[in-house]
Amino acid sequence: MNQDKLALIKNSIKSIPDYPKPGILFRDVTSLMEDPEAYRATMQVLIDQYKDKGITKVIGTEARGFLFGAPLALELGVGFVPVRKPGKLPREVIGESYELEYGQDTLEIHVDAIREGDKVLLVDDLLATGGTIEATTKLVRRLGGIVEDAAFVINLPDIGGEQRLQGIGLKVFSICDFDGH
Amino acid sequence: MNQDKLALIKNSIKSIPDYPKPGILFRDVTSLMEDPEAYRATMQVLIDQYKDKGITKVIGTEARGFLFGAPLALELGVGFVPVRKPGKLPREVIGESYELEYGQDTLEIHVDAIREGDKVLLVDDLLATGGTIEATTKLVRRLGGIVEDAAFVINLPDIGGEQRLQGIGLKVFSICDFDGH
Repeated sequence: MNQDKLALIKNSIKSIPDYPKPGILFRDVTSLMEDPEAYRATMQVLIDQYKDKGITKVIGTEARGFLFGAPLALELGVGFVPVRKPGKLPREVIGESYELEYGQDTLEIHVDAIREGDKVLLVDDLLATGGTIEATTKLVRRLGGIVEDAAFVINLPDIGGEQRLQGIGLKVFSICDFDGH
Repeated sequence: MNQDKLALIKNSIKSIPDYPKPGILFRDVTSLMEDPEAYRATMQVLIDQYKDKGITKVIGTEARGFLFGAPLALELGVGFVPVRKPGKLPREVIGESYELEYGQDTLEIHVDAIREGDKVLLVDDLLATGGTIEATTKLVRRLGGIVEDAAFVINLPDIGGEQRLQGIGLKVFSICDFDGH
């Protein structure tokens, strides 16, 4: 990747100490999207990475995954499918629960949004534990879709999400790595 | 607007009876986004409408507003600013409450996301009562931004949101009108 472009993207991401709780240094993609050059450069990296890969659907996970997944689907000329928290999707859904630090959460997908054999790219803003992407992978595979790729703007390698996702057969691509949790 | 393009867009929007509750006919933009031609056509209408209007920021309201606002900001070459439910934005925010059918809700914006004199376009998927867009307008004006335009994929004219938003000085643009509530 072009180093000037990478620096433009990485420098546009603000780091917020003690958010959402003490001890966490939060990496904030909203500041990236406020900078049109950085946002455009981010999308261009993702487009270049996936334009010749035979992707037939892009999934973005609620809500920040929409911000990169939806423009990427438009640029690749394929459908965009949202994966959302329970009760947000109006047609028939299936759900998959996953563990949080305390308790659990559930994600849902429309059952008619993925067709047998669809080659699905998963997109989110940030890879931490990988729990939401693992749950999304299970949803797509239950519907007969093929998931081999997951893309992130930010990866936090210290948390180990990349290894977890590789363990379920995904190739992980990310633009910027940041230290810490 | 080209009638074939309008038909493509309108026909891609599924109508779901009795969602989220009995008596409501829900207009579902997720089926539009699953259809790459319809999604691309929708974005092209919005780009054509706003490309020469001097817009400096696009705001999308959580979460479906992100799906049209973010690609539009990218195409216009301006920053994208999310307006979100409480507790979702990591930097300093201001909030504005608005009435729901039962109770109320609050939206927040980063205080440093809008500069004095920014010419802001508000984007959401669907105009019903206009409550979220009125609250968003107040947030932007409190920060010194200029808001004269709001764009929607779908308008439900029977509910009266367009008149409400015109009453606070907005020009409302929508692609498809649907009857009913």
